[in-house]
Formats: sequence, structure tokens, C-alpha cells
Amino acid sequence: MEQIKIVIAGARGRMGSEAVKLVESTTEYTLVGVIDHKFDGKRLKDLDGFDSDVPIYTDIETCFFETNPHVLIDLTTPEIGKIHTKIALQHGVRPVVGTTGFSDEDLKELEGLTIEKGIGAIIAPNFAIGAILMMKFSQMAAKYFQDVEIIEQHHDQKLDAPSGTGLKTAEMISNVREEKQQGHPDEKELIAGARGADYKGIRLHSVRLPGLIAHQEVLFGGDGQTLKIRHDSYNRASFMSGVKLAVDNVLKIDILVYGLENIIE
Amino acid sequence: MEQIKIVIAGARGRMGSEAVKLVESTTEYTLVGVIDHKFDGKRLKDLDGFDSDVPIYTDIETCFFETNPHVLIDLTTPEIGKIHTKIALQHGVRPVVGTTGFSDEDLKELEGLTIEKGIGAIIAPNFAIGAILMMKFSQMAAKYFQDVEIIEQHHDQKLDAPSGTGLKTAEMISNVREEKQQGHPDEKELIAGARGADYKGIRLHSVRLPGLIAHQEVLFGGDGQTLKIRHDSYNRASFMSGVKLAVDNVLKIDILVYGLENIIE
Amino acid sequence: MEQIKIVIAGARGRMGSEAVKLVESTTEYTLVGVIDHKFDGKRLKDLDGFDSDVPIYTDIETCFFETNPHVLIDLTTPEIGKIHTKIALQHGVRPVVGTTGFSDEDLKELEGLTIEKGIGAIIAPNFAIGAILMMKFSQMAAKYFQDVEIIEQHHDQKLDAPSGTGLKTAEMISNVREEKQQGHPDEKELIAGARGADYKGIRLHSVRLPGLIAHQEVLFGGDGQTLKIRHDSYNRASFMSGVKLAVDNVLKIDILVYGLENIIE
Amino acid sequence: MEQIKIVIAGARGRMGSEAVKLVESTTEYTLVGVIDHKFDGKRLKDLDGFDSDVPIYTDIETCFFETNPHVLIDLTTPEIGKIHTKIALQHGVRPVVGTTGFSDEDLKELEGLTIEKGIGAIIAPNFAIGAILMMKFSQMAAKYFQDVEIIEQHHDQKLDAPSGTGLKTAEMISNVREEKQQGHPDEKELIAGARGADYKGIRLHSVRLPGLIAHQEVLFGGDGQTLKIRHDSYNRASFMSGVKLAVDNVLKIDILVYGLENIIE
Repeated sequence: MEQIKIVIAGARGRMGSEAVKLVESTTEYTLVGVIDHKFDGKRLKDLDGFDSDVPIYTDIETCFFETNPHVLIDLTTPEIGKIHTKIALQHGVRPVVGTTGFSDEDLKELEGLTIEKGIGAIIAPNFAIGAILMMKFSQMAAKYFQDVEIIEQHHDQKLDAPSGTGLKTAEMISNVREEKQQGHPDEKELIAGARGADYKGIRLHSVRLPGLIAHQEVLFGGDGQTLKIRHDSYNRASFMSGVKLAVDNVLKIDILVYGLENIIE
Repeated sequence: MEQIKIVIAGARGRMGSEAVKLVESTTEYTLVGVIDHKFDGKRLKDLDGFDSDVPIYTDIETCFFETNPHVLIDLTTPEIGKIHTKIALQHGVRPVVGTTGFSDEDLKELEGLTIEKGIGAIIAPNFAIGAILMMKFSQMAAKYFQDVEIIEQHHDQKLDAPSGTGLKTAEMISNVREEKQQGHPDEKELIAGARGADYKGIRLHSVRLPGLIAHQEVLFGGDGQTLKIRHDSYNRASFMSGVKLAVDNVLKIDILVYGLENIIE
Repeated sequence: MEQIKIVIAGARGRMGSEAVKLVESTTEYTLVGVIDHKFDGKRLKDLDGFDSDVPIYTDIETCFFETNPHVLIDLTTPEIGKIHTKIALQHGVRPVVGTTGFSDEDLKELEGLTIEKGIGAIIAPNFAIGAILMMKFSQMAAKYFQDVEIIEQHHDQKLDAPSGTGLKTAEMISNVREEKQQGHPDEKELIAGARGADYKGIRLHSVRLPGLIAHQEVLFGGDGQTLKIRHDSYNRASFMSGVKLAVDNVLKIDILVYGLENIIE
Repeated sequence: MEQIKIVIAGARGRMGSEAVKLVESTTEYTLVGVIDHKFDGKRLKDLDGFDSDVPIYTDIETCFFETNPHVLIDLTTPEIGKIHTKIALQHGVRPVVGTTGFSDEDLKELEGLTIEKGIGAIIAPNFAIGAILMMKFSQMAAKYFQDVEIIEQHHDQKLDAPSGTGLKTAEMISNVREEKQQGHPDEKELIAGARGADYKGIRLHSVRLPGLIAHQEVLFGGDGQTLKIRHDSYNRASFMSGVKLAVDNVLKIDILVYGLENIIE
């Protein structure tokens, strides 16, 4: 089997260092280089915590020219990620991008490039396959259950409530159902907030406790039955199976895909 | 073993009819009569849905005089329940009472009677042993975990949020801990209500969905761990083991006990 | 909107009486008759527990001739159900059948009839939509998570372990994955049975306790994350939304569908 | 408030290094020295990963003589732990010991020493307070619910099934209830193992999946209700609140306590 040659941008970050491990431990992948904003000319193994004997490039075009990769895994910042994605496509390198912050205009432009070059690109705000399946199944279930509430649970260092995944789930559900005011029409909050946040009739509850990591339950209720879909994320390794899925798929497609839910059947 | 002779008031109600079943199916119990506001002189089996061949009394004193019971199980209304409890104690019949609405004054007076007569009495707003254990364990756990949230889940016909059991649990926990503002001091609700109701720093979340019956989770979080105590109540039969516990205990005590949590070790 | 005229066979059974309620409470449905093996010529409201003023027929062809229904809901026995289904198709009545026990040969024959008549038919061993979604989602998730265990929980009057739904779920999962021996290769049961039943590498655990009704969790594990899909069935009403889904769909299709999972998108 | 002077043995181990963090971050505790089998005369901060400027001793008696501690936290091996515990008691230092493997004879001897010296000692095989509460609550609940099953869930690198905590929980429950064969007397395993491991009538189910860490549910069932107690352990930090509880308590008692469950009220 032919080896898939991969370049990683952002290898020193928390996600990036996991991605290095993923590539190194996958038989059919070969890490051929990393892109960084410093350490040009060094080898990755010269840096603390890495064993890989591959070159570090500060210039992305030199990197592509010398290593000739099939895929770029980009786990940098939104700013940098956008630039890298564009250059990768221009050079025929298929990008798998984990940064957010792409505008509709950005996506349009990138889509144009994929069509022009006839190669695929995948941009994914979330690589945790379990979370993506949870959202996708929730959207499917919403066609058959009119009533749903979301309970998301995170460590108490988290500032925002509801969580991004909670809101995204509610949004995906509301896209496929008519807005519905749930609960009893005459229900009464004895203490404000008891019934949670209201997103188009869907109630969201945010639990924050020390010890928790990142968890979410989507609970559907109907006559005489309930259906619960729960995702528990324990650590960053949970993102890597999603990165692998994206790499394997980006080689088979010739369009831009935004969101892993769109490559999951 | 001597049989425990029992009279039931409120036998035609939903709880009362379950209590009849309980007494009839317990080897050491004998149902000797029922108290009702009508049907005096009839037999219980004359009424739809009952097989028991015991007399119906509209006058409680005649009932006690003729049947000489050890225990009165009262599952009537607060108004009636108070009167029954008092008369029972005056006649040396130990009451097990499932109605609420006793004032502190009422309880004082009844306590006086138990001391005077040297017999026990048990008044219990909630007979579901599982719910009582959940509350008791939650109170115990609160000594070791500073952070706790309550998620109670009920059918969508319920009007009040949080539920009575939810509030009672929060109250019992707050009795044994210093008030604490949980979550991150700078946390922010992107949609109002996301973080639930705030009862002395404890967050309560009320889920309402068709299909649900009556469920509650108490979730404690600490460094690297969480402890969850969950009670699911599926139907009215769940109250009967609590009634049995109360009957068995009321015979052994010579004081007034308010709340089953106080006879559970 | 045109009314959908419906005949029910097995209306006096537990499922059937729920189906009567469903049809009576659905605006666009009209109950036009019921088929029974006795009470010919009576009205349904003559029987205990029913209010519907529709005729009872012991002869299915007379019923179809006089009431001219669009749909037959059959909740009888396998034996009777097969005969009814065939006659219904021959008369251009679309059958929704809740009985099991159809052989491959039976299904072939019925499929021939649907093609011949150009009308749809739905046969469903399980009408609980939540359970069907759980199985469908589990099958989908199995493509992304290699490791899965099933924990099904039922009341302690249930004789078989694992449950039918548990086994069906395992079978559906094993159809889309390569057989895999899960757990540590050197794992050791200190007490036999600890690791549950083994169905092609998938472990099934059967919990049996009083109080439980019918519950199942399918738990997937991957790097740093788990995904859980849980269905709770509390009472027979849970089947009716599935019956309604089948009735609504059988009018739109012109083939035989076996299993509700095949009409769920 | 007077400072509690603490010596730690096993500081370089995984538990020990957490204990160093605990002592350093607790206002009323002062770390005065560590005991090791090497590095005598060095300071702890000379070793990788430590900041504490306290002396390292290879000789326990010299350590006690020079640092005069109130408490020894011992997180070494069973062999070494036994010796340390004995010497500590002889020198009037109260031991908190996290190693297992003490025989009944060992415990007798140590108990004698606590009495002789009039000081407390705590030996705890498990410091995770959540797990200990789960076991304690389970034992309490077993008095009111005759039927219980245990579902423990661990990562798939674990070899033994059931887990030690699972077995300990079953043992604690069986100590307070009459042995009872649960489930239907005629229940039938269609696949061997479905009903789990049988410990004196209590069924234990061991789930093993990648992604899981260490979780246990104890599920009680009764008429119309279930009670679930669940502990999730995410990382080693979960042990430290138990160590703190032990240190705080060992100063107040003058007996030997085996198992943290015995100092939890």
C-alpha cells in the first residue's frame, strides 16, 4: 500500500502533538515535515517531547516543494490556518484543518480552489467523532420525537453556558423541526432558571462541577419512552480518530467539506 | 407471631388502594377495618375493585372500639388526617400518616400526645424509600464534596419547577454545608437560565418531557471524580415499601417521628 | 384533508386497545370497523372499555367490502396475522402488521402481492421508535467505534437473557463490523460471567431487578471518549408513535417493508 | 492555628507526588521531610518535578528525630509500608498509610501500638472518597432494597473482572443482607455469562472499553422504583481529598482505623 505523506502545522500545540503521535503510529501514514513559525532548519526530534526525525520549515512553500506531501494537517490558529489552507490547495496538497473562524466568504473562495484543482479539503471545528455522532443522531431523532432537552456538563473552569457543542446541537435540531414550546404551557419557575436556557423551544441545562471534564446528554421524550444520547470526552486523544477519518476521506473527495458530520454516513 | 391489626383511612384513594393491597399481601398484617366518609355499615368488598371482607366505618371511634387496631394508616387529606391522627393517639392507636400540611403547632400537640400515651407516631410527607435514601445520602456526601448540582426530570404535565423533592434535597444539603457560590466566578450565561435555579449556591435543573415519570440525579464533583445518586420512580407501588417500613417502626417507638429519613439508619 | 379510513384487527388485545385510542385521537384517522373472531354484528362500544361506535366483523372480506378502508392495522397472532395480511393486500387494503413469525417464504409471497397490486405493506416486529432509533444509531456508530458493549435492564420477571432487543442490536452491529475480540487478550474472569455474554466479540450484560421496566444502553468506547445510546420504555403507549409512523408511511410506498428501521431516515 | 508537620514516604511515586502537591497547597500543613531509599542528604527540589526545599532521608528514625513530624503519609509498597507504620507509631508519629497487604496479625500488632502510645493510625486501601461513599451508601441501601446489581466499567487494559472495588462493594452489601438468589428462579441464559458474575446472589457485570477510566454503578430495584449510586474516577487527583480527610482525622483519634469508610459519618 502506498504511504500517505503528511505535513503537520502546529505540531508543538496540544492538538498538534497528538497529531504527530497519530501519524507516527499509523502504518500507512508517513510524517514528512512540520511547519512552524520558528526553528527553521532544525529537526522535530531536536525539540522537547518529540522523537520524529523530520525537518521543520518556517516557509510553507519550501516545505511543500521539498516534502511533496499528500495532506496538510493544520492545527494552528484561525489567522494562520486560513493562509495555510489556501496555499495548500494552490499547491495540490489536500488540507485537513482543525481551526475555526472561516467566514462564508473564506469558504466560498476555498471551495472555488478545490473545484479548480480537483482535490478535496476538510475543515472541521470539532474532531471528536463521538460528539459529531451525538449531534447527527440527535438531528435524526428529532424527526420522530418532538420534545428534547440538552444537559451538558463541564468542569467549573468553563466560562460560557451553554457550551458551544450544546448550542450547536440545539441549532442542528431546530433546523429539522418546527419551533415548539415544550413543557406545560402553564409551567411556573419557583426559582428563576430552573427550566434552563430556551433556544427556539429547546431547553439547555449547563452543569458545572470540579471533576467533570466534557459531557453532554441529549434527552428525547415521547409517549411512554425516552431516548438518550450521551457523549463523554475524557481527554484530547478523543480528537485523533476524527483527524484520521478526515485524512482518509480527504483523499477520496474532490470538494470542500465543512464539518465532519458531512462525511459520516 | 402476633398479627398486627391495621385500619386504613382513605382506602378508596390511589395511595389508599395500594395500601389495602400491601396489608392484604403481608403475612403478619391483618386488615380489620377501613374508615370512610360514606358507605357506613357496608363491607369493603362491596365496593368496586376490592376483595377484602372488612367493615367500613364513617365514625373513627366506633371503628377503633370495634376493631381494636394496633395501627392506623391514614392516607386522606391534610384536614381529615390531622383529626384522625389526634383521635388515634388518644385511643392508643399508633398512626402512620401520609398527608402533609401539619403546622409546627400541630406537631407539638401530637408530640405531647405520644409522650402522654407512651406510643409512637410517624408522619411522612414522602414514602418512597429510594427518594428518602437519595436525600439522606446527598446530605451525607455534601460533607465531603463542596460542589453539587441537582437535575430532576419529570413528565411535562408537571407545573412547578424545581420539584418539591428537588428543593427538599437542596435544603437538606444546605443545612450541612456553608453557603458556597459554585461554578467559575466569572461564568457567563449566553442564554438566561442555562445555569439553572440557584438555591443557596446549589444549582437545580428541571427537565420536563413527555414519557418521563419522576427521576432525580444529585451530582457531586470533586478533584478528579464525581459521585451521582439517582432515583427513578416508575409508579405508585414505590411508596408501599415506605408505608411498610413505617408500620414496622411505629410499633417499636414511643415518640413522634416526622419524615422517614429519621427512621432510616 | 382526506380522512384515512382504518380497520383494526385484534382491538381487544393490549396493543390493539392502544391502537383504537391512537386512531380515535388522531384527527386525520377514522376508525371504520374492527375484526374479531367473535361478537359479529355488535358495535365496539358494546364491549367493556370501548366508546367507539363502529361495527365488529368476524369475516374480514365482509368488513373490507362494507367499510372500504385504506389501512388495516393488524395486532393479532402470527397465525391470524399472516392470513389477514394476504387478504388485505388482495383487496387493495394496505396492511400495517405488528405480529412476528413471518418466514422468508411468507415475506416473498407478500412482496409479490404488493408489486402486483402496486400498494405498500409494513410488517414490524417492534413499533417502539426509540428502540428502533437506538438500534439504527448503534449500527451507524459501529462504523466509527470498534468497541461496544450492551447493557440491557429489565424487571426480574423476564426469563430470557439477553433480551430480544439486546440480541437484535448485537446482530445489527456485527453485520457492519469485522468480528473483533474486545477487552484485553489476557483478561481473566475471577468469577465466571463477569464479562457478560459474547456475541461475535460484542459483550452483552443482562440486569434483572424488580422496579425496572425495559431499558437498554449501548456503550461505545474509543480513544479518550465514550458514546452511549440509551432507550427507556415505560409502558405500552411507547409503541403507538411507531404504529402512527407506519400508517402514515404505508400510504406513500408501493413495496413491502419489513422492520421500521427501514422507513426511518 | 498550629501547623501540622508532615513527612511523606514514597514521594517520587505517582500517588506520592500528588501527596506532595496536596501538602504544599494546604495552608495548615507543612512538609518537613521525605523518606526515600536513596538520595539521602539531598533536598527534594534537587529532584525532577519538585520545588519543595525539604530534606530527603533514607533513615526513617533520623528523619523523625530531626523533623519531629505529627504525621507520616506512607505511599510506598506493602513491605516497606508495614515497617514504616510500626516505627512511626513507636516514635509517636501518627501514620496515614495507603498501602495494602496488611495481615490480620499485622493489624493486631499495630492496634496494640496505638493503644500503648495513645495515638491514632489510619490504613486505607482506597483513598477515593467518592468510591468509599458509594460503597457505604450501597451497604446502607441494601437494608431497604433486597435486590441489587453492580455494573463496573473500566478501560480495556484492565485484566481482572470483576474489579476490586466491585467485589468489595458486593462483599459489604452481602455482610448486611441475607443471601438471596435474585432474578426469576426460572431465568435462562441464552448465551452463557449474560447474567454476570454471581457473588452470594449479587450479580456483577464488568464492562471493558477503550476510553473508559474507572466507573461503577450500584443499582437497587424495588417495587416501582430504582436507586442508582454511581462513582466516576477520572484521575489520580481523586485520591487526595481522601488523604487529607485521613490526615485531619488521624490527629483526633487514638485507635487504629482500617478503611476510610470507618471515619465517614
